[in-house]
Amino acid sequence: MHFGKLKDYINGQWVSHTDAEYLKVYNPSTGEEICEVPITPTNQVEAAISAAEEAFKTWKNVSMEKRVKYLFDLRDALVQRHEELAQSIAIDQAKHISDARAEVNRAIQITETACGIPLMMTGNKFAINEDVDGEVIRESIGVVGALAPFNFPALVFGWFIPYAIGCGNTIVYKASEQSPLFMQKIMEIFEEIKLPKGVVNLVNGTKPVVEAMLNSPIIKAMAFVGSTPVGRIVAEGSAQTGKRSQVLAGAKNTLIVAEDANMDGFIQNYINSAYGAAGQRCMAGSIVAAVEDVYDEVKERMIKASKEVKIGDARDEDVFLGPVISQKSVDRCHYYIDLALKEGANLALDGRNPTLPEKNKNGYFVGPTIVSEVTPDMKIAVDEIFGPVVSLMKFKNVDEALEFFNNSDFGNGGSIFTESGLYAHKFLREANSGMIGVNVGVPASMPYLPFGGTRSSLFGSQIKAQGQDAVDFFTKRKACTVRFYGKN
Amino acid sequence: MHFGKLKDYINGQWVSHTDAEYLKVYNPSTGEEICEVPITPTNQVEAAISAAEEAFKTWKNVSMEKRVKYLFDLRDALVQRHEELAQSIAIDQAKHISDARAEVNRAIQITETACGIPLMMTGNKFAINEDVDGEVIRESIGVVGALAPFNFPALVFGWFIPYAIGCGNTIVYKASEQSPLFMQKIMEIFEEIKLPKGVVNLVNGTKPVVEAMLNSPIIKAMAFVGSTPVGRIVAEGSAQTGKRSQVLAGAKNTLIVAEDANMDGFIQNYINSAYGAAGQRCMAGSIVAAVEDVYDEVKERMIKASKEVKIGDARDEDVFLGPVISQKSVDRCHYYIDLALKEGANLALDGRNPTLPEKNKNGYFVGPTIVSEVTPDMKIAVDEIFGPVVSLMKFKNVDEALEFFNNSDFGNGGSIFTESGLYAHKFLREANSGMIGVNVGVPASMPYLPFGGTRSSLFGSQIKAQGQDAVDFFTKRKACTVRFYGKN
Amino acid sequence: MHFGKLKDYINGQWVSHTDAEYLKVYNPSTGEEICEVPITPTNQVEAAISAAEEAFKTWKNVSMEKRVKYLFDLRDALVQRHEELAQSIAIDQAKHISDARAEVNRAIQITETACGIPLMMTGNKFAINEDVDGEVIRESIGVVGALAPFNFPALVFGWFIPYAIGCGNTIVYKASEQSPLFMQKIMEIFEEIKLPKGVVNLVNGTKPVVEAMLNSPIIKAMAFVGSTPVGRIVAEGSAQTGKRSQVLAGAKNTLIVAEDANMDGFIQNYINSAYGAAGQRCMAGSIVAAVEDVYDEVKERMIKASKEVKIGDARDEDVFLGPVISQKSVDRCHYYIDLALKEGANLALDGRNPTLPEKNKNGYFVGPTIVSEVTPDMKIAVDEIFGPVVSLMKFKNVDEALEFFNNSDFGNGGSIFTESGLYAHKFLREANSGMIGVNVGVPASMPYLPFGGTRSSLFGSQIKAQGQDAVDFFTKRKACTVRFYGKN
Amino acid sequence: MHFGKLKDYINGQWVSHTDAEYLKVYNPSTGEEICEVPITPTNQVEAAISAAEEAFKTWKNVSMEKRVKYLFDLRDALVQRHEELAQSIAIDQAKHISDARAEVNRAIQITETACGIPLMMTGNKFAINEDVDGEVIRESIGVVGALAPFNFPALVFGWFIPYAIGCGNTIVYKASEQSPLFMQKIMEIFEEIKLPKGVVNLVNGTKPVVEAMLNSPIIKAMAFVGSTPVGRIVAEGSAQTGKRSQVLAGAKNTLIVAEDANMDGFIQNYINSAYGAAGQRCMAGSIVAAVEDVYDEVKERMIKASKEVKIGDARDEDVFLGPVISQKSVDRCHYYIDLALKEGANLALDGRNPTLPEKNKNGYFVGPTIVSEVTPDMKIAVDEIFGPVVSLMKFKNVDEALEFFNNSDFGNGGSIFTESGLYAHKFLREANSGMIGVNVGVPASMPYLPFGGTRSSLFGSQIKAQGQDAVDFFTKRKACTVRFYGKN
Repeated sequence: MHFGKLKDYINGQWVSHTDAEYLKVYNPSTGEEICEVPITPTNQVEAAISAAEEAFKTWKNVSMEKRVKYLFDLRDALVQRHEELAQSIAIDQAKHISDARAEVNRAIQITETACGIPLMMTGNKFAINEDVDGEVIRESIGVVGALAPFNFPALVFGWFIPYAIGCGNTIVYKASEQSPLFMQKIMEIFEEIKLPKGVVNLVNGTKPVVEAMLNSPIIKAMAFVGSTPVGRIVAEGSAQTGKRSQVLAGAKNTLIVAEDANMDGFIQNYINSAYGAAGQRCMAGSIVAAVEDVYDEVKERMIKASKEVKIGDARDEDVFLGPVISQKSVDRCHYYIDLALKEGANLALDGRNPTLPEKNKNGYFVGPTIVSEVTPDMKIAVDEIFGPVVSLMKFKNVDEALEFFNNSDFGNGGSIFTESGLYAHKFLREANSGMIGVNVGVPASMPYLPFGGTRSSLFGSQIKAQGQDAVDFFTKRKACTVRFYGKN
Repeated sequence: MHFGKLKDYINGQWVSHTDAEYLKVYNPSTGEEICEVPITPTNQVEAAISAAEEAFKTWKNVSMEKRVKYLFDLRDALVQRHEELAQSIAIDQAKHISDARAEVNRAIQITETACGIPLMMTGNKFAINEDVDGEVIRESIGVVGALAPFNFPALVFGWFIPYAIGCGNTIVYKASEQSPLFMQKIMEIFEEIKLPKGVVNLVNGTKPVVEAMLNSPIIKAMAFVGSTPVGRIVAEGSAQTGKRSQVLAGAKNTLIVAEDANMDGFIQNYINSAYGAAGQRCMAGSIVAAVEDVYDEVKERMIKASKEVKIGDARDEDVFLGPVISQKSVDRCHYYIDLALKEGANLALDGRNPTLPEKNKNGYFVGPTIVSEVTPDMKIAVDEIFGPVVSLMKFKNVDEALEFFNNSDFGNGGSIFTESGLYAHKFLREANSGMIGVNVGVPASMPYLPFGGTRSSLFGSQIKAQGQDAVDFFTKRKACTVRFYGKN
Repeated sequence: MHFGKLKDYINGQWVSHTDAEYLKVYNPSTGEEICEVPITPTNQVEAAISAAEEAFKTWKNVSMEKRVKYLFDLRDALVQRHEELAQSIAIDQAKHISDARAEVNRAIQITETACGIPLMMTGNKFAINEDVDGEVIRESIGVVGALAPFNFPALVFGWFIPYAIGCGNTIVYKASEQSPLFMQKIMEIFEEIKLPKGVVNLVNGTKPVVEAMLNSPIIKAMAFVGSTPVGRIVAEGSAQTGKRSQVLAGAKNTLIVAEDANMDGFIQNYINSAYGAAGQRCMAGSIVAAVEDVYDEVKERMIKASKEVKIGDARDEDVFLGPVISQKSVDRCHYYIDLALKEGANLALDGRNPTLPEKNKNGYFVGPTIVSEVTPDMKIAVDEIFGPVVSLMKFKNVDEALEFFNNSDFGNGGSIFTESGLYAHKFLREANSGMIGVNVGVPASMPYLPFGGTRSSLFGSQIKAQGQDAVDFFTKRKACTVRFYGKN
Repeated sequence: MHFGKLKDYINGQWVSHTDAEYLKVYNPSTGEEICEVPITPTNQVEAAISAAEEAFKTWKNVSMEKRVKYLFDLRDALVQRHEELAQSIAIDQAKHISDARAEVNRAIQITETACGIPLMMTGNKFAINEDVDGEVIRESIGVVGALAPFNFPALVFGWFIPYAIGCGNTIVYKASEQSPLFMQKIMEIFEEIKLPKGVVNLVNGTKPVVEAMLNSPIIKAMAFVGSTPVGRIVAEGSAQTGKRSQVLAGAKNTLIVAEDANMDGFIQNYINSAYGAAGQRCMAGSIVAAVEDVYDEVKERMIKASKEVKIGDARDEDVFLGPVISQKSVDRCHYYIDLALKEGANLALDGRNPTLPEKNKNGYFVGPTIVSEVTPDMKIAVDEIFGPVVSLMKFKNVDEALEFFNNSDFGNGGSIFTESGLYAHKFLREANSGMIGVNVGVPASMPYLPFGGTRSSLFGSQIKAQGQDAVDFFTKRKACTVRFYGKN
């Protein structure tokens, strides 16, 4: 299956570029080429921005009622195309099909929550005194630029597009050049539901496209999910050109296991957190920090359970663990494993040469890997790896594990496994991350709660994704003071 | 009256610097030196930051109830010292005493609103399903750096300090080197009410102090009010070091006069808006845009009313218009007037050589000045002047006046004067500024409504001042997902 | 077309009653019998309540996510069956088909807003101090009883059922015995979307059914829309049995015409407000209060426009004004007209013997009727008539018209027609009604704003319908204070 | 010390009644008469209502800013008179002085929270479409009637008066005839701070005063704290006359002790909960429900700790347990103890004849009493006793204890003592009461969280006290739809 040269979607038209550079896209499960994706030329990015600017003039004045109707139509289309959308993610991103289905489900829920924009886009009204009213009006902000990561094409679409357009903005959206297929289908949906042209524009590509967006004075806000280094560029570039920015960046999440943890519960959560989506989630648990009383038991059970994880093609139903996104990603996993061993860690479970089905021999695979006796100074305990490689660390007690956790540069997620109300309280109060859990492997926020980290995991305006936060990002507020005198 | 060398207040101690550079501060009403203010040395700024960091460890855990009690004590002290505080502003900033009293009043109201922090610092709780809870906890952010402008020492204190500390943060606050006296008195109050040491720290000075704050990894948020160029430095510096920033910057505000305006109402508002605080307010109306049908009437009445404005010492009760902050400021007014005349404008009222009381001969005065027949291309119609100089412009109708208004780089404030519901509606919807008014000369938000502009008047995180917005800026939120299994 | 004997829907089953009394239902456009509706026997009402009680035990613990999914399915079914649902209303209630379509549209929008329940069903979380958390959890309340009026079968369904069940409650819903068809179709939808049995139960009938509900200790809340006298019974009966109640009752709404009104705008709004839905809306404008300066012009234009209103069968597309609900209703209109004439009013336009198509000769018709020179003491100016009969009154000025308006026992709706910002402000501040408008004939709240009156138009808990208010009514909140000590 | 005949305070005047019946008030610590309190004659209650009605006309239009200033002045006066106010409660209600001080503290905090009314009295503003605005305005409701219980003169004052007047209403407040002294001092404060006359009016007395309020068509809302039977009268009377009502009524609160409870923590909380304020709190823990594994330990430690409770005069600093309010109250305690013994319970600790200081021999005392082996069918386990009498019950496990708890007619408060996260979660979700706790003896809500029960503990509108809930009760909201056409 080869999808040919992908197109952009600009101003209501599918656009091919004769002059563009194209990148080859591979199915990570097999290594086969599946399509080519353009690096949208700068003048075409600008065309998309202009189209969005033009569309904004009328879209901002479309009634709330009509805007929301488009969101309901979008939601219905997502529900109807659910399997097709999930498959597209299972092909280019090679997210395992069950994870891919779950991601599309979540994107649907996010869109459903965005359908509540009329509830969230309210302003305020005060009677300051008998004669004077104070009002706060919430308004659209204009043209939004958005940049998606490879690992969550559906989720991030959900965070940015329904909220941006539901709040009355228009958008230029760059899909990931590594997983561009999902957005091709989304634009088909926008065609079908007859969204006015220019309201959503799709471009593709890499750094030059980002720069064209950052440089544009027309774009008023940049929304980004991706790595911390690129995120910093987006945040600073936005600051320099007076754009607001929402930058959700890297992570390194720890699962703390207290001495009173429900061990069955922990193991079940660990498998999902560490190996779901092949560890390529910003909420993946990549460190297990066990207190010394249960360290050996935790290690033994982790090894046993991890060995049972079935590896293979992302589209095979009975598989649990698919490939990572690229050979480069495989290499990064290997690099960190090797480095950790050199630094004195042990390899409790080695996933570097997994047994694979014949058809997946050329895929980009790393099996479940547990590096044990990791210490805080090792690089593997510090850097984001983005693969199915887990560091197992031993701490004297919960306090010390928490101190390690809070010393991370990142602040996205983390959990404690305990049955103690006091430990749970302590963790909820003291853990310095944006999203945390108790006995939850992936403490990602529900679609109506704010999603986002802290420290190096969230910057720019530091406004989070989802729900009221998303509306706060995609609107601005105007304070009004009003009185009338009567004619004189 | 000479107040000597001012001190910093660091970690609960008044600090003199033997090694610091000192700047002379003058009373703008008279040109007399009134004190010297240090440029706090970098190592002392760092000491203040360290003190704040240390204080934060305990202050963040002080109960809401106790933190709020300090705010009530602060509020009571402000009420008791009202006149003394107002006089301090009337001396170094030479804000006219009635304006100074009003400013202190407003600072009291802002503090009173901050007393409602328990109402605003709420998080959320959801029952996700039978077993799982979702929570959002609102927390303090750590050490805050704050930079005050010369023109509103009391107001800006109110925006930053009560909210920052009420939300559980500690603060290092730099007073304006041109109007430092007010903050000396505020720190006396914090001493009196026994605020724990290190919670609020006062430094003084200029650019090197700002840089020391921006460079510090300990400071998590920068709050700033001042000019747009300096604001950009603060926003970008904050972005580079992962700080959130709140930057309230420059302005150029227009008063539109429609053909059906209540003319008495307009004139009264114009005088206050253009000449109150000598035009040195970010909400000052510095452009009057009259529709052609009433242009001549507007001009004539403006001249007549402006001529009646009494000019003199900021502390003389019967004066309305005091001096501007410095000779440089006088020069800037003259520069823009001269330039406008060269560009073809007329001088409807010349305030360049006002008649002054003997004791004010060396003060920095500009009288009410009306430059008429100003056109959109003139610099006087574009740049922030910050003095009692008004541009009078003629437009065909409200639509054209509004178009001009929206083309400004700035987006702080503006008003329309009209009795028509339709014009008012149109203006409230279309005016592209953060704070706007109908028949209101200074449409500054009440203390419980968001204060802040848009475009070049607000950047950084673009979170506004006052009320819930201030709490949003001075807190962060943590999303939690919680379940328990029971022992296994 | 005869729909036979209608059934109840109890515990997931369509139920016929061999022992029930049945009432005949007629098509008001033609007078033809169209179905028979049971008066559900008391023991069957109790069976429905028991079914709801049993269903509540599991429904309350169904996850938010799943409950909302049913609402989206319901919404989709309403969209698909839109025309069929509208026709059902055009038959038994004989609401004109275009009004019926609009009502179903509004019910869809209300359901769409209810899809945002996860956003509205949030509780709160506070950090009281280092050790203690405060929480507020929002919960379902249990079994709800609901009573629908004849005039808005779709709208009121939307207010009560999606919100009640979305918030985790179960419901026993009594359709109006005069317009029961719509709810038959709705229950088919609930069957189709596989809503668990017992969550929504439909009963039919009259007073004994109401009494059975009020007497039941199982029912925790009563939701009602209907006349003020019955509403009082529901409110008091609920108070006696500790139920919360939401009672939306009668109305008498005034349209004030100021001297500066846009007359074209007024006339267009007047026609819709007075004759839409044959005046059988709780938001219908049944009084026009014109200031004396424009009284004659208003009268003349009202007569002219009203004469052009086309009367006929509710299902004929080119008709504007259909019949009222019953002969009794026709008689009430005639009674008030006659009485007004006796009391000294004039008949500016007589709708008592309208010319009708042959097929509608037996229908229940009143044509557009304008009784002019009505004074405040006349009964026609005081009582709710619920038909296409308008009182035209003359007042000296807006103040006097407003005083009359505020003296009404009712407080549902009302509008002013003016272009003056000052009049609009005055009206918005001083009008003592729950829903008011400026230049709006039917100032019914949008689905995300609270719907409800004041004084004799809303009682019981006085919590309103729609949006957050609906969620407030259909949930209760629990305040929690939590700490842990650790084992001792 | 005898305070003579107390006065009412009506329309800004202290009023004596020559024609009124007077009731004698006794100090429960000593049995000495301390004052006489009038039963305000009906015509004087009506005069107070009229004064409030007249005052409302101007008070509702006093600016938010000025209304709040009165609240700050009130707060400062409460702080200054703290000890004097606490002593007044320790005399007539004979609340122990430390409890009385705590109550005044809480009243201050409630008043401080009410100072945030500008934050809570906000309405909403929506842009429905380009032309139409939707607004929700929050307004005062008019004259409020309030009825205070004997046991919390300060707390209930705080719930009703600052919120009622801060929201722009005027009030007629009836103090408890058993503890009227506190309100005499409060009215002195209102005189001092120059609150406009008629805004707050004080009456005294019993049932006839309540009836006069319920019968008045001028009163728009009734606020009540007291017993369930009287509460029902207020709720029904309000329903009949179209008033909204807030009725906080009786309670029977259970402390569940799980097998893993921190026993020291429990005992400390138990003593405060059961014997603080002599058990005369609607949040008092009057049942201890221990699981069988720890029942014996719980019993033994309760007896031991209770024996150490020092009993005596409410104003003696070293005492913990003062008297109950009256001999009738003593008799009720004895009655329930006797009845329980007859029904088969045991007397683990007998407080019926406590040893007392000589001066308190005529006081109304009951010592700490523990009735053990109480079963659910005994009256002592069901009825509210309002004294220092605790029922100790044994349950198999937490589930059964919780089932018992939820079967109570009342639903005010209750707590579980456990260190288990799972038990805590279960209790927070399933406990059917308005205010619940984990390891908290008196889970009364903080002043910024809603205070109120459910079932027979809260009725009427079921809107709760404190914070936003109080503002919801003391305001009404008006939905507005606004557009302008322009002149035609």
